[in-house]
Amino acid sequence: MDLLIHRDELVRALARAQGIVEKRPTLQILSAVHLQATAEGLRATATDKTMTVIADYQATVRTPGEVAVDASNFFQVAKVLSGDIVTLTLIDSGRLEVRCGASVFKLATFNAADFPVTPALDQARALMMEAGALRRVIDRVHFAVAPDDNRYGLNGAHVEDTAAATGAVVRFVGTDGNRLCWAQAPYTGELGIGRKMLLPRKGLGEIRKLLEGYEGEVSLAFGDRAALLQFPGVMVHVRLLEADFPDYRQVLPASYKRRVLVDREALREALRRVSILATDATNSVRFQFSSEGLVLTARKADAGDVREDVAIELSGEPIAMGFNARFVIEVLSVMEGGRVALELGEALAPCILKDMDDDNALFVVMPVRLD
Amino acid sequence: MDLLIHRDELVRALARAQGIVEKRPTLQILSAVHLQATAEGLRATATDKTMTVIADYQATVRTPGEVAVDASNFFQVAKVLSGDIVTLTLIDSGRLEVRCGASVFKLATFNAADFPVTPALDQARALMMEAGALRRVIDRVHFAVAPDDNRYGLNGAHVEDTAAATGAVVRFVGTDGNRLCWAQAPYTGELGIGRKMLLPRKGLGEIRKLLEGYEGEVSLAFGDRAALLQFPGVMVHVRLLEADFPDYRQVLPASYKRRVLVDREALREALRRVSILATDATNSVRFQFSSEGLVLTARKADAGDVREDVAIELSGEPIAMGFNARFVIEVLSVMEGGRVALELGEALAPCILKDMDDDNALFVVMPVRLD
Repeated sequence: MDLLIHRDELVRALARAQGIVEKRPTLQILSAVHLQATAEGLRATATDKTMTVIADYQATVRTPGEVAVDASNFFQVAKVLSGDIVTLTLIDSGRLEVRCGASVFKLATFNAADFPVTPALDQARALMMEAGALRRVIDRVHFAVAPDDNRYGLNGAHVEDTAAATGAVVRFVGTDGNRLCWAQAPYTGELGIGRKMLLPRKGLGEIRKLLEGYEGEVSLAFGDRAALLQFPGVMVHVRLLEADFPDYRQVLPASYKRRVLVDREALREALRRVSILATDATNSVRFQFSSEGLVLTARKADAGDVREDVAIELSGEPIAMGFNARFVIEVLSVMEGGRVALELGEALAPCILKDMDDDNALFVVMPVRLD
Repeated sequence: MDLLIHRDELVRALARAQGIVEKRPTLQILSAVHLQATAEGLRATATDKTMTVIADYQATVRTPGEVAVDASNFFQVAKVLSGDIVTLTLIDSGRLEVRCGASVFKLATFNAADFPVTPALDQARALMMEAGALRRVIDRVHFAVAPDDNRYGLNGAHVEDTAAATGAVVRFVGTDGNRLCWAQAPYTGELGIGRKMLLPRKGLGEIRKLLEGYEGEVSLAFGDRAALLQFPGVMVHVRLLEADFPDYRQVLPASYKRRVLVDREALREALRRVSILATDATNSVRFQFSSEGLVLTARKADAGDVREDVAIELSGEPIAMGFNARFVIEVLSVMEGGRVALELGEALAPCILKDMDDDNALFVVMPVRLD
């Protein structure tokens, strides 16, 4: 293997790869990025066994070949190289020689043949959607997916087909039991529904990163055990979670007793200030809704208390409720519009938050009990 | 106590104070900032018992008074306030009411009388120097002072009077046993030499921060147990370390056998790259000096090896030496000139580094044994 590659292209390849590989792998080879040089350029593959990213990069290949190198080690090296063009050569000692400017690195390698084979996806049906639309869907759902819950089905975003007046729509749903979010976007092609439709949290996050800066269509196919995301030069294979997502529609209240309209930024900033004195464990803030406005209060023993007034429009009876400030702030942060509607029931019933400018997402936050 | 203060001024006061106070104080009151409102404005005092910072801030005082509040807690609150003017009022409950925009915080307070009294300095003699000159002296010495050595005398910068052709010069010296740096600057007035002249590392760092952005003269007085730094609106009282600084002149070689001239940035960047594969424990890099140039090499088991060429001018015989890359990089980073001279003896003798554009500083790095 012998090739020339632009330093920035190499850094991009390795930055992606080292985000995927396991930090403390059970098998050493799983810390490696697999590099394959062909007449078309350089193909880099990284996997943590739950997901595999295969991406193509521009390179001038003089001798085709393949090698596996520790991804994190190679990334550290690539980042500090000075010079535009990097030469990568597999030398007789089996090491990968990295030349750039006045630097010559000789990196230890793994046997490329030991690198795990990416499983094929037994699914021809795929949906197509805009990369920007998928990014927005993930942004509005990812934060609510449980990071590591023993209710295993909560550790991924559930994907489903939803009828809409405008045509076929794909919806992603995430919840950690304290809040629930869904977001959706139109698609063309075919959404192949498999046995389980649960995309794991890490895969969702990595797909979001890979989509950064790309404008164009992506294809997404679901098999029985895995999903495959593709766009020019990038292929992501993600193993689906083998667990059941709860019937989230049961959680959504059918109607509401009170409705509050509020400026999104004003509420978010007020909450940010009040939460400084929210109790550490539950971040609990008291929301007193009345015709005079919303009064937020919090108290922390030994530190003090705080009160903040926020202008609202309330339809319905006054009510006092408690919320974990962080959960509400996170929801408000992924919204984009100026005004938010809060749909409320009784003090301990789920609260629905809607971006007034966006029908394609819905957010639910569970209240906490006030002392 | 009742006063109005600009939000930015309050944040500046509390940012300083919370940098001084102990994070896990033995006495709760030591986590507090003491605030005193007088006709002149607001005076804030913070201490960790080894150092005390007293600083004045602009405020419109309606009712004079004093209070002590948890510095970190108040800083968190002040940072998020929205609005230009903050009202601080000591209310009947003994709490400090903080009003700004739509926010009302009521913070818990300590009994102001419990706040420790700042010891007076029994020393009338003081030197005067430019703030910018003192900043530069600290920048070139602070990093080399041991952070927490059981050779207690190394945990501070030694201060001494040095004769120079240009007049009186004050020199700061720091060492952790692996490297030693001194830097000096002219002064007027009188350098009152006390029993011990060891400024502790934390005090040095906090003084450096307080000097940021101030252009003008500072006064520095040394008593038997403490030093006092003053400039308009700021007073810093630092307890000196009760320990002996080593006789550092013994470490400085009287002459050298080899002299190397090298571009500072080129050497620093090359070292930064090579150090990626330096062994973790000692960061050891091999320096091979010869008439062809400087060859830097490093090797890390399981990762690989690296070689980098740097252009130099060598006077004297070729030699191979080992250095901890981090120590050399840190020295090169605090220099400002384009060219550096390395004065070398035998392989394990101390190496002197000099900024060719700066006679007022000197740096020594101890070599490490090559395998």
